[in-house]
Amino acid sequence: MRADRYIDGPPLGLDLYREVADLPIVSPHGHIPVELFAEGARLETPGQLFVGADHYVVRMLYSQGVPLESIYGADDRDLWDLLVENLGLFDLTPSGLWFRETLVNVFGVGGPAGAYDRIEEQLASPDFAPRALLDRFRVECLATTDAADASLDAHRGLAPRIRPTFRPDAVVAIDAPGWAERVEARDYPSFVATLEEQRAAFKAMGATATDHAATSADTTRLSEAEAATIFAAGIAGTVTSENARRFEAHMLNEFARMSVEDGLVMQLHVGSLRNHNLPLAGRFGPDIGADIPVATDWTRGLRPMLEAYGNDPRFRVILFTLDESTYSRELAPIAGHYPSVLLGCPWWFHDSPLGIDRFLDRVVETAGIANLAGFVDDARALTALPARHDLWRRRTCGWLARKVEAGFAGEDEARRIARELAVDLARRAYNL
Amino acid sequence: MRADRYIDGPPLGLDLYREVADLPIVSPHGHIPVELFAEGARLETPGQLFVGADHYVVRMLYSQGVPLESIYGADDRDLWDLLVENLGLFDLTPSGLWFRETLVNVFGVGGPAGAYDRIEEQLASPDFAPRALLDRFRVECLATTDAADASLDAHRGLAPRIRPTFRPDAVVAIDAPGWAERVEARDYPSFVATLEEQRAAFKAMGATATDHAATSADTTRLSEAEAATIFAAGIAGTVTSENARRFEAHMLNEFARMSVEDGLVMQLHVGSLRNHNLPLAGRFGPDIGADIPVATDWTRGLRPMLEAYGNDPRFRVILFTLDESTYSRELAPIAGHYPSVLLGCPWWFHDSPLGIDRFLDRVVETAGIANLAGFVDDARALTALPARHDLWRRRTCGWLARKVEAGFAGEDEARRIARELAVDLARRAYNL
Amino acid sequence: MRADRYIDGPPLGLDLYREVADLPIVSPHGHIPVELFAEGARLETPGQLFVGADHYVVRMLYSQGVPLESIYGADDRDLWDLLVENLGLFDLTPSGLWFRETLVNVFGVGGPAGAYDRIEEQLASPDFAPRALLDRFRVECLATTDAADASLDAHRGLAPRIRPTFRPDAVVAIDAPGWAERVEARDYPSFVATLEEQRAAFKAMGATATDHAATSADTTRLSEAEAATIFAAGIAGTVTSENARRFEAHMLNEFARMSVEDGLVMQLHVGSLRNHNLPLAGRFGPDIGADIPVATDWTRGLRPMLEAYGNDPRFRVILFTLDESTYSRELAPIAGHYPSVLLGCPWWFHDSPLGIDRFLDRVVETAGIANLAGFVDDARALTALPARHDLWRRRTCGWLARKVEAGFAGEDEARRIARELAVDLARRAYNL
Repeated sequence: MRADRYIDGPPLGLDLYREVADLPIVSPHGHIPVELFAEGARLETPGQLFVGADHYVVRMLYSQGVPLESIYGADDRDLWDLLVENLGLFDLTPSGLWFRETLVNVFGVGGPAGAYDRIEEQLASPDFAPRALLDRFRVECLATTDAADASLDAHRGLAPRIRPTFRPDAVVAIDAPGWAERVEARDYPSFVATLEEQRAAFKAMGATATDHAATSADTTRLSEAEAATIFAAGIAGTVTSENARRFEAHMLNEFARMSVEDGLVMQLHVGSLRNHNLPLAGRFGPDIGADIPVATDWTRGLRPMLEAYGNDPRFRVILFTLDESTYSRELAPIAGHYPSVLLGCPWWFHDSPLGIDRFLDRVVETAGIANLAGFVDDARALTALPARHDLWRRRTCGWLARKVEAGFAGEDEARRIARELAVDLARRAYNL
Repeated sequence: MRADRYIDGPPLGLDLYREVADLPIVSPHGHIPVELFAEGARLETPGQLFVGADHYVVRMLYSQGVPLESIYGADDRDLWDLLVENLGLFDLTPSGLWFRETLVNVFGVGGPAGAYDRIEEQLASPDFAPRALLDRFRVECLATTDAADASLDAHRGLAPRIRPTFRPDAVVAIDAPGWAERVEARDYPSFVATLEEQRAAFKAMGATATDHAATSADTTRLSEAEAATIFAAGIAGTVTSENARRFEAHMLNEFARMSVEDGLVMQLHVGSLRNHNLPLAGRFGPDIGADIPVATDWTRGLRPMLEAYGNDPRFRVILFTLDESTYSRELAPIAGHYPSVLLGCPWWFHDSPLGIDRFLDRVVETAGIANLAGFVDDARALTALPARHDLWRRRTCGWLARKVEAGFAGEDEARRIARELAVDLARRAYNL
Repeated sequence: MRADRYIDGPPLGLDLYREVADLPIVSPHGHIPVELFAEGARLETPGQLFVGADHYVVRMLYSQGVPLESIYGADDRDLWDLLVENLGLFDLTPSGLWFRETLVNVFGVGGPAGAYDRIEEQLASPDFAPRALLDRFRVECLATTDAADASLDAHRGLAPRIRPTFRPDAVVAIDAPGWAERVEARDYPSFVATLEEQRAAFKAMGATATDHAATSADTTRLSEAEAATIFAAGIAGTVTSENARRFEAHMLNEFARMSVEDGLVMQLHVGSLRNHNLPLAGRFGPDIGADIPVATDWTRGLRPMLEAYGNDPRFRVILFTLDESTYSRELAPIAGHYPSVLLGCPWWFHDSPLGIDRFLDRVVETAGIANLAGFVDDARALTALPARHDLWRRRTCGWLARKVEAGFAGEDEARRIARELAVDLARRAYNL
């Protein structure tokens, strides 16, 4: 593969990239299960690793007529072959690019055809044990994402390299089936108290951040009385969907208050309408690639939370969007004003070569570099880490080189900014 | 004119283009009247062809102070002169580009000044008879757009080269003046039955697709009882505007059901607020260039239809938008998941050099190439076909060449994808 | 600095730029106080000029933790030092670029460190008197922005070079604290009559335009009776916020009527939610960089106004947006149809190198060049004028050169369009 691949623009881009290519990986947000880092744990088998567990791949196969029955529960080698046969679907997509890069750079394999055995063998070897890969990939720090009520036993002894992230979405979804059985608290004040205790436990285990996903950016606070009433309806199983959503908005505001108090950095991922394809969700569950974005009103949505805590030097919130039209319209102006707000990198579908350009093009002129939170890979597969971070570094360096070429920055500035984008901003944003 | 015009990027773009430049034209969606293909039929005169019948041209002239009175009903040569005098208005617009290309490549005329007579003469000659032009332009297949209740007599004997498309918008607009007189059915079940019969007649005449335009993407199904009640109000002339819109949303869902059953591909064009300039519509009617786009919520709008039929292998729907912010936010994720959904090419205002780039930039990374439906020209003038398809081919080849240059694809892939974009995807999407 | 800085693309860009670089400055919209042009007036001191009075700079400093207390009321030299110390925050932002350009080209200073004394001295010198700078900058015409009820005394004798602009936002905000005391009229008809008289006074003093800011694009007209009722509630201090917004929408429609009658060009700036950070507004007032954009529905919002006056040859309205997603979706189609509508240049956050490209890329293909209103600098500091206009000229010339390179225009067209974008369109749009 060409040294300058994915680096659009003048040769300076490759120079800039070479200075950051081998910097450590700082990964403050992702979905690698902590169990992988237990003594003796191994990664999944090839088909599961590259197909079954990757919702980007599953959705594309499904979109072209591959039934989910032939994916979930399939023989692992068949899964691999399914990907190989359909590899053309991934032309010009990030999934295709990450796959190609990972085969070559992690497994030393030139192409996928006939590579199953070799990859399977490597995955089973000690060199590919997750802890060994952390060293090989120069992972300085990696955060997992853990349910608020998760036991953190598996995290014991892993910090500061591996850290948990407090994710309470499931415990605040008070109209979800089974919710009342899941939470222990029977009234709102003890519910809040439990969350505060759980956060303290996360923090003790090395967590520096929380993570929150919502369809809407609404953060309207309820009165304590109303919150208590709605909570009680949740326990009784009589809460309306509308009130459940209002409760979630309220809890975002409440989580911001907790962040002010305990210093955990709040991550907010907004705009995915989960399980859009309900019939399929009923059969195959969530995370099958059927979450579809919707437009987001960040400006009005965040206002209650930012009025309450946005000027507090103890508060920090990092925003991630699926609505690119808000980059220049809302997010960059918000981050360019509120001291508490940083912008997360392009998320999900937008973590792509052109998605990265669009993000930088639309936010930097208004928010500058210092209001960005750097890169997070959001990865579910440990083996994907190098490709994700490498693509970000290549694209940001290409982008910076084009700025230098057009006279917007000097080379020295570009070099400094390239390092910030690669690791420094993330370290600072997440208090690592 | 330069051989590499409109092909931004490295020289490879021209190479790619040369391989697809002379492929046949597949035109599965457009607005050329079928009457043109009758024995002995001729195209309009120059002024009518290039000005009076082209709402892109009319709107631009009007926007700069040319009264519609001087366009509609004007002497044909005056119309031509009007365009020539105002040609500067079309600098850097697709209309200007298509006009220039058509003059040179279809009429062999270097520029518009003084060309009226020569063009008029050619238009009257047998070489410019519509059927002759189909051959000259290498038109493999061309679909017209026909009202649901249209007699298809003029289509007899023209398939498979010329095919009708079933467009029921007018017959489901139950609050439109004259609607109750237009439809024969007096109750909802017979209305639905009539539509099914009409679709069968279209199919028998070679149709492979239907076409639906809507301001909103809403596809919420009504109960049969409510649909019947609203329909009856339409017949009685008492339906509210709100219920008429709900009925249209319901009918989109119902048309999807019919598509599942009869296999006609459903095209959905969403987001134009028709006749924005009501005073002008009152005087000059529709299609004068006063339809203005609005934002679209595809994700929530299509959900009822896609939950019902989106996973059915017999269903196919092709989506066209006027809201570019939905390309990456909604359309690519939807097409990249649902097996039934393909994305139509940039539509209307967005069928332009930069509009094509924006489309490819925003959808391919998430939806891939295989979830695209190729190109449709949407043309009203037969003479415009070569310029429209040629521009698409030039732009897509330039775009692909830039991908190769930046290391995202190999040359062989780019060559294959160039052909798919030029004709293969459209053939497949429309079952041609 | 390089001669071709900020001109992305082929060398032709610099050629084009050289032909427009020294054209006069036409500045039909901005916020320079008219008092500056009084005999003997001087600009602010350096810290105030470059920091305290520049809400772009204030917001960025605040976003990175600089308390507003250390900005407002600070010693002027400290303010300057604050900027110098934090200059890195402005890397790759327009603020940084304008600052750098202004230092070099207006003050002849290579960099900010240690330059305070030299700049302070220059600012106090006769060569930097505002009237002298007008000559030096070749300012042909400059419009200030003045409250509807402003005394225009300071404008006396300054036209035609300096002209006022009628801005009635404050006097139609009938729920704002102190409003009832501010306006003299006690009933709606005399309120309207007063506005008409004020407009006539502005016109007599050289005004050619009005300016209106609104959060929403709604222009729905009320009945006279309802307008009178709501106005009376405003006087009584009992108007609801919702009715106050409806009254503002109505007044936009009413101001359009007045424009038809008196010929003042209407400017409409839509989409800023002012004072998003209410706690901070309570302490430091407006214009501290805490106005955050929201999405705009131009298509439906403007419809009542455009139906009423949009086809009238006496009416002209220039639209400015903070919602870039409306460029191609709504604004270009509207301007490309209605004879009364022109599009203002990229506004506020979008008056930036990439913002200019996005604007041209998204509107020109649909609206053409002739439906644009050219450039306005919107500047608050007289010294910023050269940098603002120069950046626009560089970027537009670079953009045009890329069009020529790709075969979309000839060099002669590009030269003509470069001049139009630099000054001619603005002269024409504002009747200067």
